[in-house]
Amino acid sequence: MPETKRFAIVVSEGTFDKAMMSMMMGNTAASMGIETHIFFTFFGLNLLKKGAKPKMPGIYRFFTGMMIKKMKGIGLEGFKEQLDMAKDLGVKLYACSTSMEIMGIKKEDLIDDVTVLGAAAFLNIGVESEMQLFIG
Amino acid sequence: MPETKRFAIVVSEGTFDKAMMSMMMGNTAASMGIETHIFFTFFGLNLLKKGAKPKMPGIYRFFTGMMIKKMKGIGLEGFKEQLDMAKDLGVKLYACSTSMEIMGIKKEDLIDDVTVLGAAAFLNIGVESEMQLFIG
Amino acid sequence: MPETKRFAIVVSEGTFDKAMMSMMMGNTAASMGIETHIFFTFFGLNLLKKGAKPKMPGIYRFFTGMMIKKMKGIGLEGFKEQLDMAKDLGVKLYACSTSMEIMGIKKEDLIDDVTVLGAAAFLNIGVESEMQLFIG
Repeated sequence: MPETKRFAIVVSEGTFDKAMMSMMMGNTAASMGIETHIFFTFFGLNLLKKGAKPKMPGIYRFFTGMMIKKMKGIGLEGFKEQLDMAKDLGVKLYACSTSMEIMGIKKEDLIDDVTVLGAAAFLNIGVESEMQLFIG
Repeated sequence: MPETKRFAIVVSEGTFDKAMMSMMMGNTAASMGIETHIFFTFFGLNLLKKGAKPKMPGIYRFFTGMMIKKMKGIGLEGFKEQLDMAKDLGVKLYACSTSMEIMGIKKEDLIDDVTVLGAAAFLNIGVESEMQLFIG
Repeated sequence: MPETKRFAIVVSEGTFDKAMMSMMMGNTAASMGIETHIFFTFFGLNLLKKGAKPKMPGIYRFFTGMMIKKMKGIGLEGFKEQLDMAKDLGVKLYACSTSMEIMGIKKEDLIDDVTVLGAAAFLNIGVESEMQLFIG
């Protein structure tokens, strides 16, 4: 029986493009049987807030709706649906505890099934993983 | 005989700086005998379009020419030449199939010797690699 | 006795957020006994200049002071203090030699205890590391 592979992702930006890439890579990995861990830090933490609606970066923010429509057109789910899918697939979602303190975000501001974690605990997962990506 | 190391890069931005860094890291690795795979996704996909001329980000776009001149001054090739070098060195270049669909980019819009690949196939390469970087 | 783990970070942006994340992740890892290497390239190289005072990105630059104050409020040191801490913890700091040439930065422009290194030498460290992140 092959050993389970692990994949650790850090998300440090809260924009739509980085949000979607972390979700799509994480969900694809999880559906392949890879144990997937996503750590949301700095601006990325905003993605875990209840009702988060990430926008494209800078002046592209006005094209977010168009991008969502294009994605729907080829059968891709939106960000909220991707987050729900992540939970269903068993992807572990972590909120960086230091970022929560800096930005004054409380556990109850976040969606359900998120684990609050410090950088040390996440790095422990990272060094034991076969693949790590910093998306931000 | 030492085992061949593998290096997997994801490029998600189409700006000159990220383009050059992925090429220079990829080509350096390949010339060291490291098996190198570069996956171009989202905005990064634009770099594989025929005739792509990436610009520096935001307001720095007007300084792209100056940056290219500085690089030439110390013997660094431009982006197109780096891409050609990558092919010569055997670097594998992949276009993200989902990004192609979203952005309406067809295989014939891309330069030669590019393989169209899904995220799952790339993640398979990634978890089997000794090093992975997300440049974007 | 467990083998020492290694962590290789590339920093390619010179903004406050990316600067702090690389320092906080690097210092946390080093304090856990992980051998930590940080390679500063492109805009990231500016962080190693004497007296560097990184700012938040884009229009957020005006909020850098507020962010520093918030961080101080929860006991987080500023960038300069984090750099000093990195040295005390034995984190290896590298300046990308090619970036120095492009930007006309000399060794004496940089803070002490920085090693000038080429991409090939850094990639050698990277492929032998258990974890790699590209912060930029």
